[in-house]
Amino acid sequence: MVKIFINGGLVDADVQAADGAIDPTDRGLTLGDGVFETMAVCGAQISHLAAHLARLRQGLDVLGFDAPMDDGGLQAALENVVQANAIAEGVLRLTVTRGPAPRGLAGPATPSPSLIITGTKQESGPTGPVTAIIATGTRRNEHSPLSRIKSLNYLDNILALREAQAKGADEALLLNGAGNLTSASTANVFAVIDGALVTPPGSDGVLGGGMRAEVLRELGGTERTLTPDDLARASEAFLTNSLSIRALVAVDGVAIGTGPVTKQAQKLG
Amino acid sequence: MVKIFINGGLVDADVQAADGAIDPTDRGLTLGDGVFETMAVCGAQISHLAAHLARLRQGLDVLGFDAPMDDGGLQAALENVVQANAIAEGVLRLTVTRGPAPRGLAGPATPSPSLIITGTKQESGPTGPVTAIIATGTRRNEHSPLSRIKSLNYLDNILALREAQAKGADEALLLNGAGNLTSASTANVFAVIDGALVTPPGSDGVLGGGMRAEVLRELGGTERTLTPDDLARASEAFLTNSLSIRALVAVDGVAIGTGPVTKQAQKLG
Repeated sequence: MVKIFINGGLVDADVQAADGAIDPTDRGLTLGDGVFETMAVCGAQISHLAAHLARLRQGLDVLGFDAPMDDGGLQAALENVVQANAIAEGVLRLTVTRGPAPRGLAGPATPSPSLIITGTKQESGPTGPVTAIIATGTRRNEHSPLSRIKSLNYLDNILALREAQAKGADEALLLNGAGNLTSASTANVFAVIDGALVTPPGSDGVLGGGMRAEVLRELGGTERTLTPDDLARASEAFLTNSLSIRALVAVDGVAIGTGPVTKQAQKLG
Repeated sequence: MVKIFINGGLVDADVQAADGAIDPTDRGLTLGDGVFETMAVCGAQISHLAAHLARLRQGLDVLGFDAPMDDGGLQAALENVVQANAIAEGVLRLTVTRGPAPRGLAGPATPSPSLIITGTKQESGPTGPVTAIIATGTRRNEHSPLSRIKSLNYLDNILALREAQAKGADEALLLNGAGNLTSASTANVFAVIDGALVTPPGSDGVLGGGMRAEVLRELGGTERTLTPDDLARASEAFLTNSLSIRALVAVDGVAIGTGPVTKQAQKLG
């Protein structure tokens, strides 16, 4: 019997790998080898489910394995968690990993992907205005396809957010290697500059959120490369993710105005 | 009772979070929020233990949390796994994560880090010559401190290795954003160019391995930025990690010679 040390002491590997347990050799845990989606639940309904599942599949395509269920199966599993936890208003998180595997970086030729869904009750997402810094400790990698999918490799964003909190700000904006703006740690960024609504393009190292797509479609925004100097000239700015649209009112201590486009966007949210 | 969907169906969250189980909310699994070390076991002894624990602590410093035990405790836990699994020759993997946490990217102010140690019997590491490609699908991010620690965010290296295998090569060399060489997917790279032993510096986005440090110290190598063109002029080249030192005999189908420096290095391994 293989023995594994977990926290306080030795346990049997077979017990750990039982049905309904997280296997300690799961590549999601050992290598961050997976993707996830975070979905709002409103009135016991999953918001924008099709868009979330489409983005999940795009991420899995990049990683080279598939989810253990088709979209209908995933939807049923998600609804199962909503009902079992009686979630009227809240958040679902769906994670798919390449699953348990022996040692070795490449992964098994025929993986057994893991599916994990957790749900949390939450009356509503945060809606108040946000202050941000531009992170100096790390940058997003526009040369990696991971910058455009929602993978489990979230440490750069974690480091940036921790830097923001240490500096007394709510959020961090991350630059890419070229020094251009990408996104906040958990949100896309929009700005109104010279009267035009703009947001950085995916090619600059941006994860394309569903709410970002909706804002671009409904409010007629355009994608273009943005520098920190561009943002400093913005008449208004806001952050979007699946759970909220919030005004961005200061960057590195310099105030940004609020205005009508942010209010229009918030009506979409 | 909170219910979580894992693979085939719903389970109780409390059962999942029991002692000796991996909590589904562990940030190592949900966000890749942790570090690890891979150590050779030779004659039932852990090789270069002090260097591995020092690098682990450096990584944890970057992430901003500490291991749940001091070095003596970690050593005892590692030896526990060696003995319980009767490993004479093999590999240990020690993982430390920021531990279980509620939703939210920044993590708890006072985390409860997780410690997981697995051991595998293995007669000896691979020793034969290696062919490589230069990965075109992704690059390492020299602007992130993560490129210099052994974090759980391993997907760029996984993508590069999978690209190599798809092209019939054993390994992938990753460039950084500036187009300079960094390392292979699981090894540091050395080359002999114009008679000098060289390897890329940490500032180019390189994880400094223990074997890399030993080669630099014992064979008098120097760190300098290397381009793919530099490597194409190498008279010999080799890859190093904790488990092996292997000759690099071809890159993108172009042969590299073998020579005396590689043989000297292999005597250290």
